[in-house]
Amino acid sequence: MNAPVIVLSHPQLGENIGAAARAMANFGLSELRLANPQCPWPNERALAMAVTAKDIVEEAKVYPNLRSALGDLEIVYATTARDRGTTKEVITPAEAARRLHAQSGHRTALLFGNERAGLDNEEISLCDAAITIPTAGFASINLGQAVLISCYEWYRAMDTTPPAKIEHGPVHRRPSREELFRLFEHIEHDLTESGFLFPPNKRAVMVRGIRAMIHRARLTYQETQTLRGMLVALTKGKYRGEKNVKDA
Amino acid sequence: MNAPVIVLSHPQLGENIGAAARAMANFGLSELRLANPQCPWPNERALAMAVTAKDIVEEAKVYPNLRSALGDLEIVYATTARDRGTTKEVITPAEAARRLHAQSGHRTALLFGNERAGLDNEEISLCDAAITIPTAGFASINLGQAVLISCYEWYRAMDTTPPAKIEHGPVHRRPSREELFRLFEHIEHDLTESGFLFPPNKRAVMVRGIRAMIHRARLTYQETQTLRGMLVALTKGKYRGEKNVKDA
Repeated sequence: MNAPVIVLSHPQLGENIGAAARAMANFGLSELRLANPQCPWPNERALAMAVTAKDIVEEAKVYPNLRSALGDLEIVYATTARDRGTTKEVITPAEAARRLHAQSGHRTALLFGNERAGLDNEEISLCDAAITIPTAGFASINLGQAVLISCYEWYRAMDTTPPAKIEHGPVHRRPSREELFRLFEHIEHDLTESGFLFPPNKRAVMVRGIRAMIHRARLTYQETQTLRGMLVALTKGKYRGEKNVKDA
Repeated sequence: MNAPVIVLSHPQLGENIGAAARAMANFGLSELRLANPQCPWPNERALAMAVTAKDIVEEAKVYPNLRSALGDLEIVYATTARDRGTTKEVITPAEAARRLHAQSGHRTALLFGNERAGLDNEEISLCDAAITIPTAGFASINLGQAVLISCYEWYRAMDTTPPAKIEHGPVHRRPSREELFRLFEHIEHDLTESGFLFPPNKRAVMVRGIRAMIHRARLTYQETQTLRGMLVALTKGKYRGEKNVKDA
């Protein structure tokens, strides 16, 4: 997968360049370009903030201006806040991610403006479309955070992680129906013996309610065995001397 | 819309608390809770980092421990990196956002661990499910950035911004077909006069190619007029003295 290049136009703070690099590493991007950076370069704060993404910072290419930084690229999206006053296509980060994947045979890039002023209209006019991150009232997003959201959306668009799954340890598996039924029988037996399932005409409803709780918990086989062990411990000796002792 | 509460368990750095508050303001969340913060509180760095979200920092509630911070909440999701070794439901931030909206009649919360170690298994065991942000190889996400992605997903799940739109200035509107056809006729006339549409058997193909470019540009009415003005300027006097002067 051909990941987009991240281009920062005259960035001011090394911290933000480092945060951008870290976000890139989190989401599988690797090429960083700096057009006319306003901070000393190489930059210690950028390296510190990048944590384990130092290589992205060290290999960042520096260009004297934005035009040269974009020169060999084919598709460029400019990230900007609302209302530029120009007639420009404005897309969401999710739509940008969708297009970047569809265009992955091309040399693509995401462009970000500097901390103080963002991108100006001249810079935006060099790009195919503008990306605006949808926000609630407060629209100003930190440079590192804007890069993070764009990189996250790019990764998310190709990510196949299931929306929800139960994470199992190595010895865990789902119980078969038969194993689950044995748990049901164990619980229902002990609750009958203890007199909990009373009166008899309510028994079926109560049993179904208990089974529903167990289904909802989506137990592993190990957990069904743990519950049965708990029942054995709780009832141990309980009926000693009584008439209805289970193990008698 | 009942936004989730953001709960930070023993956070260490004021900067990250401020960044979390800023992310919350960006995406329409407002209630921040700190369980046993490890930094001085109130905290100047948190206020500085929050920028215009200072009120969220100032109104953050501080609790002596995590149990008390969660006490009145009904649904809590714990954000954690992969592989806890426990049998727990793990969901994506997008799935968490979907559930939070479906559960918005309840008191919901998103819980985040501290910078050094994240959430431990004891803390996770107090929550309904775990959220893991899908990442490429490098899975460690900064606390402020994890809060940002969760808040962004929550806002995104209810955001109705169209994926793509043309942003128009106040005087811009789409041209009617008739206005667009007038532009076609103007261009095709001038290119015929100038000899560009040659040879005759290629004319129709060339004309259709030019029209396709114009459709793709999705011009405003104002832009069609600008293009016509450019044609007038470019051809002005060009044919002076020639036989086929358009305006003769």
